[in-house]
Amino acid sequence: MALFTNKDILEMPGRFRANFCNSLVGYKTLGLVGTQNKDGAENLAIFSQLIHIGANPPLFGILFLPHTVRRDTLENIVETKSYTINHVAKSFYKKAHQSGAKYDRGHSEFKAVGLNSEYLKNHPTPFVQEAQVKIGLNFQSRIDIEANGTILIIGEVQLVETNEEHIKPDGFIDQVANETVLGSGQDAYYTANKLARLSYPQPESNPTELEEF
Amino acid sequence: MALFTNKDILEMPGRFRANFCNSLVGYKTLGLVGTQNKDGAENLAIFSQLIHIGANPPLFGILFLPHTVRRDTLENIVETKSYTINHVAKSFYKKAHQSGAKYDRGHSEFKAVGLNSEYLKNHPTPFVQEAQVKIGLNFQSRIDIEANGTILIIGEVQLVETNEEHIKPDGFIDQVANETVLGSGQDAYYTANKLARLSYPQPESNPTELEEF
Repeated sequence: MALFTNKDILEMPGRFRANFCNSLVGYKTLGLVGTQNKDGAENLAIFSQLIHIGANPPLFGILFLPHTVRRDTLENIVETKSYTINHVAKSFYKKAHQSGAKYDRGHSEFKAVGLNSEYLKNHPTPFVQEAQVKIGLNFQSRIDIEANGTILIIGEVQLVETNEEHIKPDGFIDQVANETVLGSGQDAYYTANKLARLSYPQPESNPTELEEF
Repeated sequence: MALFTNKDILEMPGRFRANFCNSLVGYKTLGLVGTQNKDGAENLAIFSQLIHIGANPPLFGILFLPHTVRRDTLENIVETKSYTINHVAKSFYKKAHQSGAKYDRGHSEFKAVGLNSEYLKNHPTPFVQEAQVKIGLNFQSRIDIEANGTILIIGEVQLVETNEEHIKPDGFIDQVANETVLGSGQDAYYTANKLARLSYPQPESNPTELEEF
């Protein structure tokens, strides 16, 4: 086992430190975020920091890098108050990764990477047709994180489309059946293997494996 | 495919909605958080909302539920300004889950679930000896999220111990080699399968698979 102090990390070459710290946190939840600008131009970008804020009301967060360069997705969300999160699936993870390229402004990443935009019900921003889990949100609040200028955008879920067969009787969504992909670091992609669902932990007994999995 | 509106979600029975929303976000990054209270009593608890805030300086976040009931970990971090994050590995994920049980105050979860506490260098709070990735942090800031009372605690990494053989030449940490476990919902555990690491996306070309993986 190797030990690294705060000083060791700060003295790492920039690219090495970015890889080290980004993968140190473990696995990350990926989502393709679909937006429109005020002129209706569609935008799609991959994000690796989705956060479950709460279930009642249903709130999700996305962490954005500091707003020092062009951030189309962030600007569109703040401007139009609407966006979508679409889980990256195994069948299109390379296209999802490619959506991170810096295309010219106004150039739709949907077309550039070969994914189809889709509109559901009355939600005003585009979903990814190919996704198995599609979440439409309204902007709820913005938190500027003083520590380093990152920005947490919180939204309330307005619409969900997903495969009904992959929802267990207790409400649990089977992301393995949806072939949902996860990330690590800045560029690594994985699928998941089931270990178990465990019963609610009680001080007096050991957890047992649930049947709904 | 099934559609659920905001109203549908709000009308779900509470336990169903919790399972649905917690698993809807996709996979989650798990960590066992080690703390001490001001009297030196050790505490260990599992958290599923770890967030990579930044690499320079190295900052990680943990999202806590509203502070309406006893939250030993949160109170200890705010009081002592020190804590550890230890990635859950396949060899002890059931013990990690069990650390979520509500033991009597002052009862060490390390002893209750059968994991060993360990102190490294001059870091004042306990690590999980069995973990392959151990991160020592100092409290940096606290953000109260108005939307629903959740609390984001940000810490700066002070010390990392991990298996040197699982760090690639470019700084990327191989969490599959570390047998790091991930979560979904409130009670599901998984390991990861590698798909690929992809080259930095450029508008003119498709990504290629990196060799360091």
